[in-house]
This record gives sequence, C-alpha cells and structure tokens, in this order.
Amino acid sequence: MTIILGIDPGLQRTGWGIIVSKSNRLSFVDCGTIKTDSELPMAERLKQLHDGLQAAILKHKPHEAAVEETFVNVSGSSTLKLGQARGGILLTLSLCGLPVYEYSANMVKKSVVGAGHADKKQVGMMVKVLLPASNARQADAADALAVAICHAHQRDFLSSLRKQGSST
Amino acid sequence: MTIILGIDPGLQRTGWGIIVSKSNRLSFVDCGTIKTDSELPMAERLKQLHDGLQAAILKHKPHEAAVEETFVNVSGSSTLKLGQARGGILLTLSLCGLPVYEYSANMVKKSVVGAGHADKKQVGMMVKVLLPASNARQADAADALAVAICHAHQRDFLSSLRKQGSST
Repeated sequence: MTIILGIDPGLQRTGWGIIVSKSNRLSFVDCGTIKTDSELPMAERLKQLHDGLQAAILKHKPHEAAVEETFVNVSGSSTLKLGQARGGILLTLSLCGLPVYEYSANMVKKSVVGAGHADKKQVGMMVKVLLPASNARQADAADALAVAICHAHQRDFLSSLRKQGSST
Repeated sequence: MTIILGIDPGLQRTGWGIIVSKSNRLSFVDCGTIKTDSELPMAERLKQLHDGLQAAILKHKPHEAAVEETFVNVSGSSTLKLGQARGGILLTLSLCGLPVYEYSANMVKKSVVGAGHADKKQVGMMVKVLLPASNARQADAADALAVAICHAHQRDFLSSLRKQGSST
C-alpha cells in the first residue's frame, strides 16, 4: 500500500490531495486547498503554504509526493511568484523527508483523461470517476488528486516493467 | 546592537553575510557561499540551501534578514529556477522566525556605492572599505554583505526619521 500526496502548486491557492494505491486500485483519502493572504509579505505567505501542507502530511503520513511541473508563464513576474511558491512547497516536502516526483500538466492530463490537451472540466470529471468518494469541490484540489493519480499510474507502469524484466 | 543577515539568492550559489550594526557603526562578523549540486533534483537542492542557511543562522543568531530582490530574467526557465531558490530561502528565514526585508539591486548599489548603476567590482570595493575585516573572496558573499549594509543604512535612516518626528 502506498499513500500518495498530489500537489497543484500556486501562491494564492495550492491544492493538495491524498490517495492510497494498493494492488493497482486507487482510493480517495482527503483533499483540500491552502490559501495565502495576498496582503502579507512573501516570506509569510510561503510560511502559510508550509504550515498547511505540513498539517496534511502529519495527518496522513504519505510515502511519496507528486507535484505538477510549473508552466513558464508569459509574464516574468507571474513566473517569479509561482516559482517562489513552488520553491517553498518543494522545500517543505524535502524537510518532511518525502521523495518528490514531478509531472508536466500534459502528462497528468494524458494519464487521467487519456489526452494531453484535455481541459480542466474533463480532468475534474475523470477524477470523480476514478475516485468516486472524493467529490472535490475546488478545482485546485481536483487537480492535485489528478497529479496523485498520474503518479500512481506511473508507479504501477514502472513496477510492471521491472517485473517483466526480472521474469525474462 | 543589531545582527543583520544579508543574502544574495541563487540556485547554484547563494551568498550570505553577517554584520553587526551598533550606534551607526558597522562591523563584519562572517560570510560565505552555499553551493548546490546541479545533478540533484530541485527539492534536494533547496534542502541544501536551507541546511547551509540554517547553519549560519544557528551559529550567528541574526535579528533581521535582508534579501536582494530578484531581477526578472529574459528567460522564463531561468526566472522559474531563481524563483524557486528564492522561495526556499524566504521560507527558511520565515521558519527561523526572522523578519525579512527586501531590497532591489539598484537600491543596494545606491546605498553602498552611492550610484544605482554601479558595477559588481565597485560594490565589492566599497564592501571592503566599509567592512575592512570582511575580505570576502567570493562575489556572492560580497554581494550578500552589500545587502546587509543597505539594510543597516535603511534602519538608521528610518530610526533618525522617527527621532526627528518625536522631537518636534
């Protein structure tokens, strides 16, 4: 059994979702969104993301974390903000001793919907199909669950490759 | 007496410098450069920056931290990398309970050299003049000391304004 934490990083809102992967079957555990106060200085907003994420990690004790790769934005200042949020999140995961895996948005979509250019709605619907108990109301939390599902699929794929390799 | 930690953030190399500001006089305490291993995943590189910075903080127990603001790079991927390093550094300072002040590169140069468009060499020379004991061999450490000096000047300026205000 592997407990997976998926994360959709953002400075204003970071979505997180926890699933369990056991013998190729996935089940929903918990999900949520961490919001930061835009009137606070950057260092304090990053502390808010850290504290929210740490609380979820202490509660559910995931074994591995999967984070969506950041799209390089057209605006330099947006990229910088997202980069800082992402840096704070990756450091938090590392300080909690979690191995971190990164997946591009296209890979997440392809893994969950079957097409790299699916839209947000389709991803949300497939998350509901794959994890019926989730009923994630917020888009960020649904995206985070999609990242966790993508990682679970990748793990299964790699372990089946290893099995094939050892049986030949 | 105020112990100030100045930081010049970077993913490959982050410079840090510690000075003491006491009755308008500055003195050098320590400085150094934290390097990260470019072959490691991002989360582990951010942990290296965190560990190096935390060691300097535990050793010198600064009261305040000053960080150079990040220049938004032409390349999106460079901006993202620097943003992530910066996010990890700001979170580390926040987790250590330090108040964080940010200054633009131009403000640092103006405060140290007297001109906003001074070059790196001029900044390095002025750091040697203002903190003769520093003898910072690396440019990153000299830049970090320049950020600390800039913050010390700003503190003195603001406190003299407050004194003027209360005496009128």
